[in-house]
Amino acid sequence: MSAVAGSLVLVPNTLDLGTEAAVALPEVLPQAVIERAARLTHWVVENAKSARAFLKRVDALVPLAQPLQTLSIVELPRPRKGASEQDDAPALRALLAPAVSGHDIGLLSEAGLPAVADPGARLVQVAHGLGLRVEPMSGPSALLLALSASGLNGQSFAFVGYLPVDAGARAARIRELDTLSRRSSQTQIAIETPYRNAALLAALVQHLQPGTQLSVACGLTLPDGWCRTMPVQAWRTTACTLPDRYPAVFCWLA
Amino acid sequence: MSAVAGSLVLVPNTLDLGTEAAVALPEVLPQAVIERAARLTHWVVENAKSARAFLKRVDALVPLAQPLQTLSIVELPRPRKGASEQDDAPALRALLAPAVSGHDIGLLSEAGLPAVADPGARLVQVAHGLGLRVEPMSGPSALLLALSASGLNGQSFAFVGYLPVDAGARAARIRELDTLSRRSSQTQIAIETPYRNAALLAALVQHLQPGTQLSVACGLTLPDGWCRTMPVQAWRTTACTLPDRYPAVFCWLA
Repeated sequence: MSAVAGSLVLVPNTLDLGTEAAVALPEVLPQAVIERAARLTHWVVENAKSARAFLKRVDALVPLAQPLQTLSIVELPRPRKGASEQDDAPALRALLAPAVSGHDIGLLSEAGLPAVADPGARLVQVAHGLGLRVEPMSGPSALLLALSASGLNGQSFAFVGYLPVDAGARAARIRELDTLSRRSSQTQIAIETPYRNAALLAALVQHLQPGTQLSVACGLTLPDGWCRTMPVQAWRTTACTLPDRYPAVFCWLA
Repeated sequence: MSAVAGSLVLVPNTLDLGTEAAVALPEVLPQAVIERAARLTHWVVENAKSARAFLKRVDALVPLAQPLQTLSIVELPRPRKGASEQDDAPALRALLAPAVSGHDIGLLSEAGLPAVADPGARLVQVAHGLGLRVEPMSGPSALLLALSASGLNGQSFAFVGYLPVDAGARAARIRELDTLSRRSSQTQIAIETPYRNAALLAALVQHLQPGTQLSVACGLTLPDGWCRTMPVQAWRTTACTLPDRYPAVFCWLA
């Protein structure tokens, strides 16, 4: 690889996607991230519209190196059904061509850190295959903020992503993860599409053991964000409203 | 609980502990975190000396609300051998007394997010028990930065902490975690005391399957930090020096 190759820069985003709260960037992003984002001219993003909205917020604090309309902003390809992981390599290598020829490329998700509970990991993997430098920048991860605020075991934990939507399969998976947590003292972390958060909470409260500690974090880093940890039996007698547009993270330890 | 109770504020720290690199706070911490830290007068910390060093760095950017020497800075109690988890509750409740009477308390680790791969989780749990507001602030997590930079599966992952030091037990654990990763497509994340990083890398390269993807992230957020992901078989023929004072994170996916 040429010594002048660019980096793939992993740029964190705020956690206010889809909510009415507009968090000021300096609430959650280091100044160095805002400045670096303002200098990047090539982007690969989860969603072009939200990426432009992010860059407008950056521009209001640190003027962009060149006008927004002239930046290269390309969306990550959506995984095709039935395609093997390797099939996307040529398309991803093409997205990284500007880095090979010397331009730093920013990778941006709609919220939080790229490639964690979000698309982009395959692009990062292909970047490593090309010998490109991959540079992650400090920013908010809803998963880890929720874990740290939960008070549950932070020495051993697993992120299990989304649980099944089907009620029967979901109940079985919750019981399985409760057992796994008990056996290995491992905190389990799950997320859900916001409009299904209340349903997931109800399922967790119903199917986890009464003594399991359950933590719900809602809208962390937002002005009215909160986190609450109680045994499941206490959740069973507590009225709790989860707003259907706020991101939430669920952690439990049996 | 009184309506005027204070919060337990989870204040992130930089990731340069023990290294010669002194990262400027605005490289990794949002301005809001620096400003909030400058206002807090009560602290519970992993280590008082490093907490004072952190607050001096804050003071150089945003003057502290009151002189450093007059701040209340208390170290977390060390877990006693053989003591049950509940035994520490009275001591932890005492540490939280200022919050109950209205002062916000900052919780600070020596590096990264408090209570994740670090002490403090029990204090957070006791704070929830007291009905205190727990407020995590955005900052760097070495684990999640390493995961996002690895390009490995960010939809399902587990942090397994430290592996056994004994060579036989370590080899067995590595094989077990390799199998677990293969069975569930789950990225495994481990850390080690910096001076043992090279030994852990050697053990991983020896005992993981040749086709397993192994990622090493060293000194992330530091000026000479790097991350590299390759199949184990490629690591076997690659000379790689891990500096013995830099924090490293190891991720693998079979």
